[in-house]
Amino acid sequence: MPSLEPYRNELDYSYAPGIFPAMECLLHRPESVRRLLVHSAAVGRDGIEKLIALAETHRIRIEEADRVLARISGKENCWAAAVFTKFSDILQNDCPHVVLHCPGDSGNVGTILRTALGLGIEDVALIRPCVDVFDPRTVRASMGSLFRLRVHVYDSFAEYRNTFSGRPLYPFMLDASVPMGEIKEVPHVYSLIFGNEGSGLPAEFAAMGQAVRIESNDKVDSLNLAIAAGIGIYHFASKGALV
Amino acid sequence: MPSLEPYRNELDYSYAPGIFPAMECLLHRPESVRRLLVHSAAVGRDGIEKLIALAETHRIRIEEADRVLARISGKENCWAAAVFTKFSDILQNDCPHVVLHCPGDSGNVGTILRTALGLGIEDVALIRPCVDVFDPRTVRASMGSLFRLRVHVYDSFAEYRNTFSGRPLYPFMLDASVPMGEIKEVPHVYSLIFGNEGSGLPAEFAAMGQAVRIESNDKVDSLNLAIAAGIGIYHFASKGALV
Repeated sequence: MPSLEPYRNELDYSYAPGIFPAMECLLHRPESVRRLLVHSAAVGRDGIEKLIALAETHRIRIEEADRVLARISGKENCWAAAVFTKFSDILQNDCPHVVLHCPGDSGNVGTILRTALGLGIEDVALIRPCVDVFDPRTVRASMGSLFRLRVHVYDSFAEYRNTFSGRPLYPFMLDASVPMGEIKEVPHVYSLIFGNEGSGLPAEFAAMGQAVRIESNDKVDSLNLAIAAGIGIYHFASKGALV
Repeated sequence: MPSLEPYRNELDYSYAPGIFPAMECLLHRPESVRRLLVHSAAVGRDGIEKLIALAETHRIRIEEADRVLARISGKENCWAAAVFTKFSDILQNDCPHVVLHCPGDSGNVGTILRTALGLGIEDVALIRPCVDVFDPRTVRASMGSLFRLRVHVYDSFAEYRNTFSGRPLYPFMLDASVPMGEIKEVPHVYSLIFGNEGSGLPAEFAAMGQAVRIESNDKVDSLNLAIAAGIGIYHFASKGALV
């Protein structure tokens, strides 16, 4: 078995660092797990025995790998990690989607994945160019939610739109004329579209579907992307009674 | 003038790293600014001339300080920072408050400050033990919002409550029986109370005011603190028409 390389976008595998994210990976994507890495001092840590038992059930190779764990997590007290093959899902056509257009921050993407799952939206599209959704920092910020969601990365928004034509689209834009609070009726399926942290969505999205803005004042340039997504997902999910 | 020390909680001053956060500091708290630090390669950067002109208007000392900037920001391309004296405000009794009970993550606190300001809540209380609200990481995550808010740190929640008795309190708790969406009428003043990232609010908060929970499923342990605060602040601020 080849030795493990430091995480890189180009690799076809990545790491889920931490006992809890590794557990989510083994519970929900066991077929994607290549190995389980365990620290030599992990014995007795909360959850570690359950994690090892789960790996054994699935006949996943378990390795003691202190140095690799320190390297991929950037800290000394990372007790376990799953090595998993990157995956690509088919999104469900009859479910609401979150679409992240060219997100640039791994932490934001992970936080949005966690929010979407917790509020009941389980299909997430990313549009390139974007950060790697399998980056260990994303996995960690998602608290392993990545492994319970359906996720697909598209080369362009046109590709996404062609794949899922006819859905109501809600681009979130700072200068949209319709405040989100005015959306009282939410359809059964829809796509909530959020732009890049710095540049937002390109202007042409204003003509796609119903652009909305989150009501805020001009004392801040904008809300943080993950916060805006959280507020938007909550509004639509609670109106549609997903949670 | 004494030399500048690396940031520490114990110092009576801190740093606002980055041109935009430094600008917010000079614009809204000029009386707190001790010096403006500028990088030798900052000439021509967006906003730097306005920043220097503002410092000159307020007769604030300007220093070239490449090494200090790299040290406080942890990166090479930090073009400016304001050195400011930590401050303590008197919160407004007739305005809504956000209360952060023992927050442990500087980035979360900064993001919540930015959200509160953008959604129209301008009074923020922190309850000890908590991270330093003046930590440069908090200032940066807040995008300088810190300097436009009224902020006060209390030794205990009892101290806060005694100072502002009689206000409606809304503790956010995972196991509260009332879903937030059921709160349709929002009073003129109120306090939204959010607990620590890991442990939430202590159980006794359930008996204070009207505890509420953000409707989410059990596929995640909880929402990220800054996300929960964003969703909560948006709900109350939009019902109360603050934005």
